[in-house]
Amino acid sequence: MEVEKKFFPGLEGVVATETNISFLDTVQGEIVIKGYDLIKLSQKKEYLDLVYLLLEGKLPTEVEKETVVEKLKAEYELPDKVFDVFKLLPKETHPMDALRTGISALAGYDDQIDNRAHLINKERAYKLLGKVPTIVANSYRMLDGQEPILPLQELSYSANFFYMLTGKKPSELEAEIFDRSLVLYSEHEMPNSTFTARVIASTQSDLYGALTGAVASLKGNLHGGANEAVMHMLLEAGTVKAFEEMLEMKLFKKEKIMGFGHRVYMKKMDPRALMMKDALKQLCELKGDDLLLRMCEAGEKIMEREKGLYPNLDYYAAPVYWMLGINIPLYTPIFFSARTVGICAHVMEQHENNRLFRPRVHYTGERHVLSN
Amino acid sequence: MEVEKKFFPGLEGVVATETNISFLDTVQGEIVIKGYDLIKLSQKKEYLDLVYLLLEGKLPTEVEKETVVEKLKAEYELPDKVFDVFKLLPKETHPMDALRTGISALAGYDDQIDNRAHLINKERAYKLLGKVPTIVANSYRMLDGQEPILPLQELSYSANFFYMLTGKKPSELEAEIFDRSLVLYSEHEMPNSTFTARVIASTQSDLYGALTGAVASLKGNLHGGANEAVMHMLLEAGTVKAFEEMLEMKLFKKEKIMGFGHRVYMKKMDPRALMMKDALKQLCELKGDDLLLRMCEAGEKIMEREKGLYPNLDYYAAPVYWMLGINIPLYTPIFFSARTVGICAHVMEQHENNRLFRPRVHYTGERHVLSN
Repeated sequence: MEVEKKFFPGLEGVVATETNISFLDTVQGEIVIKGYDLIKLSQKKEYLDLVYLLLEGKLPTEVEKETVVEKLKAEYELPDKVFDVFKLLPKETHPMDALRTGISALAGYDDQIDNRAHLINKERAYKLLGKVPTIVANSYRMLDGQEPILPLQELSYSANFFYMLTGKKPSELEAEIFDRSLVLYSEHEMPNSTFTARVIASTQSDLYGALTGAVASLKGNLHGGANEAVMHMLLEAGTVKAFEEMLEMKLFKKEKIMGFGHRVYMKKMDPRALMMKDALKQLCELKGDDLLLRMCEAGEKIMEREKGLYPNLDYYAAPVYWMLGINIPLYTPIFFSARTVGICAHVMEQHENNRLFRPRVHYTGERHVLSN
Repeated sequence: MEVEKKFFPGLEGVVATETNISFLDTVQGEIVIKGYDLIKLSQKKEYLDLVYLLLEGKLPTEVEKETVVEKLKAEYELPDKVFDVFKLLPKETHPMDALRTGISALAGYDDQIDNRAHLINKERAYKLLGKVPTIVANSYRMLDGQEPILPLQELSYSANFFYMLTGKKPSELEAEIFDRSLVLYSEHEMPNSTFTARVIASTQSDLYGALTGAVASLKGNLHGGANEAVMHMLLEAGTVKAFEEMLEMKLFKKEKIMGFGHRVYMKKMDPRALMMKDALKQLCELKGDDLLLRMCEAGEKIMEREKGLYPNLDYYAAPVYWMLGINIPLYTPIFFSARTVGICAHVMEQHENNRLFRPRVHYTGERHVLSN
């Protein structure tokens, strides 16, 4: 009995899972995270509030938040041997590949790795949230031949992350903007990387495996790699006029332009992009240099006029990270670091109410009889 | 405009992609690989024929096969630093996690990693096929505190793999049976691990990333981990009677029993299991000890009678590997090694005709207004 099967390229429009974590409400124009509008959260809350919300299901009280702060601080350090692994990787290793190798290697330090119970998974998630920024910043530094920057307990979670990334402690505004970018990247329904993690977790595989798969997914140009691609375009162009010409040439050649459009938002600007555009304005004002803002706005106009496409978060996160003094190859690893909490929440949900992902195919090849 | 969306738990019955690589023809009862029946291939061809078939699209001539033999031999060796990475991993690291870390680390040695062109991907696949057996066998040995066994150029591909796994050169029958197990594991439509790899590749991420995700997927108990679970059950029981009682107790407690059933075959025995059952008979005859065969047959009867479930490949591959003298923690890594070629073929196909996988969700949570 062969049931008639439907083919949905890229699984567009297919509901792959039920979830109480988040969804893109395209009718009301809201990114819903555990019931709340992400944009409002980004205006009023910090990244660690989102961490608590995603892992515990509610916003924290002051006391609860302090517990999370301490819990994460206790997990900042990495085993020395993980640093030694980074030293062994070839200099040419892509930062996302180093991050993937680091998370993969950490699995061996988990003495309860075969336990997928909710509470164990949650403690594992906190542990990883403590360590991923240290991996991101220092695997990059060590590939670059620099000494690691060890975490500073006196700083907040995102200020410490910023410090390890740049070697300097952020100003109040810098810390606030960087933290907001982490909030905006924290969770976003079912993008490819989150889907990858749930597919892997559905075999009853563990959180480390799900996260390594998600890093691999996010590395791709059509996903997390877009923020770096945007910054390279902006730097290559260098002026408003050259950027306009570059985009027009790419449109003429029908090349894909990174940083625009999103399968789910379609005809509307990603509201997260608006938040990062505001942050870019603040940084431009502070530094007395609004070139990147003017370039981005010019690009925005062209893409709306020519293609009806609007910027997504990556388009404005890229120049923000640039003005914060962060090196380009770190943009996608930062995106991953911020998203770790969302992916952990999805893996926990998958483990609790599991159904193995196992789709079918349409076979388009020939049939042969084996002759000899 | 919100299109009505359909929810298919586990994507059961959903066609996720078109492919000319393979499909499970449940009507004619054939596992079709590039047009050929896998069972017939396993009776007449060797693993390297399958490698050529899957990567080049046709069965090789003698000369073409010799080229592949030489190409793979040239890739057996690993960079010394990858061995050094294995030395750094904690002894408790799961062999699949060590394999994942090894493949992840190899990415840094690929000086064309950003090139996803068909021919480059194909050479990358051959390179990985040369190295994965060396990683599988030696990451396990090194975690176990043993010296690596370096590949022997004088042996065939599967005989060399067997030699690195066990420390001894196989007899002709052992080599033949081990090779046949690799053929049977080589490719199987769209199981979770292959799907994981295609989902990752669809972001335009690379082959190393897709394979690390696939290792993570295959590690799960509901997927590749099943062959190891079967062997542990058989050893724990130790006699036909105790195995029958164990299965009946598990059925009574409604526990999942590994090695039986498959979402796609449903009411029919996995034809690959039949081939491995034949191999088990041969080995039992050779060694003059048919205990494992009798245990497996008794289990088969109980599961058919009580649940209408039939053995899958893992159920008979496990005792075959045991009688070949291979340590249990290597069974899933061997499965992955054999499947590497199928996954590479799928990643290449995905890169050539790409559509980003990005499904949706049904949100089952509440909605809140942020008050403060």
